[in-house]
Amino acid sequence: MKPTEGRRRVVIEEVQPQIEAGRYPAKRVLGDTVEISAAIFSDGHDHVAARLHYHHKSQKKASVVPFTAVNNDVWSAKFTVDKLGTWLFTVEAWVDHFDTWVHDLGKRLAAQPDPKEPTQQVGPQDIPLALRIGANHVDAAAARALGADATKLKLFARELRSLAEKNLPYYEAPKLAELIDLMAKYPDLSFSTMYPVELPIWVDRERARFSSWYELFPRSASETPGKHGTLKDVEARLPEIAAMGFDIVYMPPIHPIGLAYRKGPNNSTTAGPEDEGSPWAIGASDGGHTAIHKKLGTMADFDSLVAAAKGHGMELALDIAFQCSPDHPWVKEHPEWFLHRPDGTIQYAENPPKKYQDIYPLNFESADWRGLWTALYGVFKFWTDRGVQVFRVDNPHTKALPFWEWCIAEVHKSVPEAIFLAEAFTRPHVMYSLAKGGFTQSYTYFTWRNTKTDLEEYCEEITKPPVSDFFRPNFWPNTPDILHEQLQTGGKAMFQQRVILAATLSANYGIYGPSYELLDGAPAKPSPGKTASEEYLDSEKYQIRDWDRTSPDSIAPLITLLNAIRRENPAMQRNESLHFHPNGNAEMLVYSKTTPDFANTILVIVNLDARNEQITMTNLDLEKLGLTADEAFEVEDLLTGARYAWRGSSNYVALRPEVTAHVLRVMR
Amino acid sequence: MKPTEGRRRVVIEEVQPQIEAGRYPAKRVLGDTVEISAAIFSDGHDHVAARLHYHHKSQKKASVVPFTAVNNDVWSAKFTVDKLGTWLFTVEAWVDHFDTWVHDLGKRLAAQPDPKEPTQQVGPQDIPLALRIGANHVDAAAARALGADATKLKLFARELRSLAEKNLPYYEAPKLAELIDLMAKYPDLSFSTMYPVELPIWVDRERARFSSWYELFPRSASETPGKHGTLKDVEARLPEIAAMGFDIVYMPPIHPIGLAYRKGPNNSTTAGPEDEGSPWAIGASDGGHTAIHKKLGTMADFDSLVAAAKGHGMELALDIAFQCSPDHPWVKEHPEWFLHRPDGTIQYAENPPKKYQDIYPLNFESADWRGLWTALYGVFKFWTDRGVQVFRVDNPHTKALPFWEWCIAEVHKSVPEAIFLAEAFTRPHVMYSLAKGGFTQSYTYFTWRNTKTDLEEYCEEITKPPVSDFFRPNFWPNTPDILHEQLQTGGKAMFQQRVILAATLSANYGIYGPSYELLDGAPAKPSPGKTASEEYLDSEKYQIRDWDRTSPDSIAPLITLLNAIRRENPAMQRNESLHFHPNGNAEMLVYSKTTPDFANTILVIVNLDARNEQITMTNLDLEKLGLTADEAFEVEDLLTGARYAWRGSSNYVALRPEVTAHVLRVMR
Repeated sequence: MKPTEGRRRVVIEEVQPQIEAGRYPAKRVLGDTVEISAAIFSDGHDHVAARLHYHHKSQKKASVVPFTAVNNDVWSAKFTVDKLGTWLFTVEAWVDHFDTWVHDLGKRLAAQPDPKEPTQQVGPQDIPLALRIGANHVDAAAARALGADATKLKLFARELRSLAEKNLPYYEAPKLAELIDLMAKYPDLSFSTMYPVELPIWVDRERARFSSWYELFPRSASETPGKHGTLKDVEARLPEIAAMGFDIVYMPPIHPIGLAYRKGPNNSTTAGPEDEGSPWAIGASDGGHTAIHKKLGTMADFDSLVAAAKGHGMELALDIAFQCSPDHPWVKEHPEWFLHRPDGTIQYAENPPKKYQDIYPLNFESADWRGLWTALYGVFKFWTDRGVQVFRVDNPHTKALPFWEWCIAEVHKSVPEAIFLAEAFTRPHVMYSLAKGGFTQSYTYFTWRNTKTDLEEYCEEITKPPVSDFFRPNFWPNTPDILHEQLQTGGKAMFQQRVILAATLSANYGIYGPSYELLDGAPAKPSPGKTASEEYLDSEKYQIRDWDRTSPDSIAPLITLLNAIRRENPAMQRNESLHFHPNGNAEMLVYSKTTPDFANTILVIVNLDARNEQITMTNLDLEKLGLTADEAFEVEDLLTGARYAWRGSSNYVALRPEVTAHVLRVMR
Repeated sequence: MKPTEGRRRVVIEEVQPQIEAGRYPAKRVLGDTVEISAAIFSDGHDHVAARLHYHHKSQKKASVVPFTAVNNDVWSAKFTVDKLGTWLFTVEAWVDHFDTWVHDLGKRLAAQPDPKEPTQQVGPQDIPLALRIGANHVDAAAARALGADATKLKLFARELRSLAEKNLPYYEAPKLAELIDLMAKYPDLSFSTMYPVELPIWVDRERARFSSWYELFPRSASETPGKHGTLKDVEARLPEIAAMGFDIVYMPPIHPIGLAYRKGPNNSTTAGPEDEGSPWAIGASDGGHTAIHKKLGTMADFDSLVAAAKGHGMELALDIAFQCSPDHPWVKEHPEWFLHRPDGTIQYAENPPKKYQDIYPLNFESADWRGLWTALYGVFKFWTDRGVQVFRVDNPHTKALPFWEWCIAEVHKSVPEAIFLAEAFTRPHVMYSLAKGGFTQSYTYFTWRNTKTDLEEYCEEITKPPVSDFFRPNFWPNTPDILHEQLQTGGKAMFQQRVILAATLSANYGIYGPSYELLDGAPAKPSPGKTASEEYLDSEKYQIRDWDRTSPDSIAPLITLLNAIRRENPAMQRNESLHFHPNGNAEMLVYSKTTPDFANTILVIVNLDARNEQITMTNLDLEKLGLTADEAFEVEDLLTGARYAWRGSSNYVALRPEVTAHVLRVMR
């Protein structure tokens, strides 16, 4: 069967950004200039033209902006996103007969029989005829134009015709600049091709792209040793955290903790009456996911904490863990949301033969999945209504993926500012699928990427398209669940190295403190010769810890400096410019980030060997630093203030473990 | 808005092969085993299962075949295409609770308190409870099953329950193999996910993948010097062409040639009364694209030629050039199919300031595009009705791309055997778009890929997915329009080298003869110091040529040998196994092709330097040859019959220009 209109000769392909044929949106941030690229071409030698149609989902009328040719039939157009939420775009392209005519006229004029050097390529009637063809194009545009433009176009057409009638032996090139601009306003779209899909872009606020997270357990926030901390204690800590330069304060779950099968210190299966239990065993007689653990304080304390964080230029992030202790009110109110075993009991979490009897997973195959989804959405709604807009989601990969896609979209309808960090420590496809489905940021494999090759390959994968179009990494050197073997054995140098890597490789990063800055590296079970446990000894997950923040070993000053560097240098606030520079030493990692105009360019050199001094000669890709070959330049180490006079690609660097890294600003 | 069914927990992504989200079909050949891959995963730790639905477009009912896991959530399924035409497939996947249960039961059994080494991981009721859960899964499957299977399943369920009731202190692993097989027949598809698109595959006959083309001008086919050849003369030549091993005989257009603006010898703008004109200036008073030039013979001669070719195991290919001489009947009958200039004349072909006044292009923006499309389709219909199933299409990139997609599909409806070779000497996106739109094979940039790096990079691009899924290269060392500078200056060694490369790199190849085998390298305009013209001197496009096929310099014997090697070695008949092996000499190209089982493995080594001997030590990727490290093996040179005893990766090779290449069969 023939198409409805067979004269649409232009083909549009490879439109980017595009995720799963438009099934999911590409992610951008408020104020971003979005670049759309596409392969646009037609048969033959006719020129093509194209324009981008784009609009915020709330606006019916699309704006248009022309595409410009890049090379090899690839075209590019740009627009700025100035509103949060979903934007839609598509591409329209057509054969531009007028542009072809302009181009061919130039060739005809150039090939005229020159009185001095006659040739016979162009006959006497060729140019007059071409001028008349051009006049026809202009008249057709005049019929599409309005008011003054139409009048002007008619005048241009008349001029071309009268020029044609002169039948000159030799034609000077007519001045066409104004005509060309005017013609571009009234293209002939009769046979234009429209890309068949409107592709979505999701626009977040800036903190989605650039954020510094500080995680702490409120239970340990008291200044009195051994005393259970409160939200008020956390509020008292805010000035110190703000002074360190963090912008998100994240607390593990703050809800009532179940008593049934409560875990004791160091994850022991029996808890004494004084034991606090795990904050992730959510729910007790006094409430579930929308209640506050009594020992932490009241809802009024919480509201006060939210406001205080805001006062310090920070935000509070809550931990949303969709699972229930056996004492959670939902267990009695909605037994249909849980899986039941043949003996009538509710299925607890397990990874046979391991049992987690203090946790009931929710059953996403429940006959009442609709009610369950609504209730889970209600948890986010409850907290966004109280002013929380940042959520760290616990184990999202153990909840149904279609649920997240729906739930996040639902929250975003009323709160487009909401940020969701996925604790997606799972397989790559699942991790990426959560990001595609709506999670704003994600935990990553950074913690287990420790060698130069592994760091380079992994960062390349996640900071470049296609992955970077939907996935925003958030680098954590530690979490309450993950004390990497390197930190158990690498000492202060390793703690310094890993936080420098996290804070400078990724625009989003976080630490679990005060554990981190106080160099807490004691594992629950040191297993020499085997793979060490990544659990902390005396983990705050099961007990209160006292932290001596006055310790002279604290690396809080380094972290404070890193956060200041991140704030002051726009290059640090995005990932797309990340570039790894080669060098001959397998322990020396060299990378740079820059703003597009190279006004702010940061070069980081890290000694990955926490035990020995390493030296290398750099082999800088100068164009990635905005420098030319053999150019002399100065670099300032933002960690020490030292300045070095460098020249060209090859420069000498030595780093002792206790210094660990240079964070160099390229001066010019 | 919630989805209709929120319990479809499995995600299906990255389904391959897939071209432009299913807009175009992937290409395969009759008898191929088609491998479909997909990323298939769900949340949590539940196991998933998946099946492929596939069917020929003419069949309503789909067949199903299970997917098997490959790694990292990527799954694979295979089916064989045993019918020409369009096939459709899609993927269905679901959470397989029974499979999860089997896996978990194994872990529970393994963790039982061993009387000899007691642990407390598994409690006394854990295994009986697990057995009862399993019995429930089996009962549910029994309800889905029919007849004997249902009975068997009920029996299995009963057995599991009675085992559970025994409450043994220690359970042996029950034998589940038969149950597992039976359960796989009756999966629970209540919450299965269906991939939302049916993806197409186009299945051609084998010659689409493996063909050897011989192009000749019938005008020069007479054995009498100077006499205009005929179709009868071509018929007389068939035994010789068949003996050389070709399977497609391709003739430039055989239609009446226009008189208006007829070109003389060597493309001169004026023709004498005896000049034959260009066969591509199609159409005269005695007919157009469905008529035969009187000097060539009659339709009966044509029918005889088609039959004779078939008798020799060959096929005739016609050249379809959709353009008209000013004398073509369509110019008078359908002036609306051409573009008219303001002076009333029809627009001839031009690339300003160059004019091709003997050619009128068809206007694909004609108001009567429907009539034009129908007429052009009619040309194919006319010739397929006369038994022609192979078409070389001239300059397809100067006709509207949507036309080709419609026209080829239309021809394939009644003649799925039809093969279309695109003379798509144009930009990469347009070349690939023609292939996506339906062309079976395509000319390539091979002619201009002359260095080792260029040949390697280009062949990698076109023989691997995604390109190889829609694009089938046909390598031509020369055409009547393209006499590459290398052939003008490289002498016999270069002619030998280029045909060896074409015939062994690509499963589809062709030559323009007898020009090629007789080493015709004289260009129309030798331009020392400048880029040489690629036009032949005294080109057959404009005149009759006499070819002395008895010349002792003829490389027909080499070509005959190459075609025999291609027929006898299945490795040569496909491209997907092509692999380039490194070696230190920039003039020595080393590559292999093999059958999947390595039963037939060919290693080719070509000296690209037509003037000097080159030597190298190979650095073979042994696993690509089915060999193990340090294995001794013998290779037989299929060009000379010589045998060499080789061992491992590194072997000595020397090639003089007059020998040019080894085509080695790996013996074992």
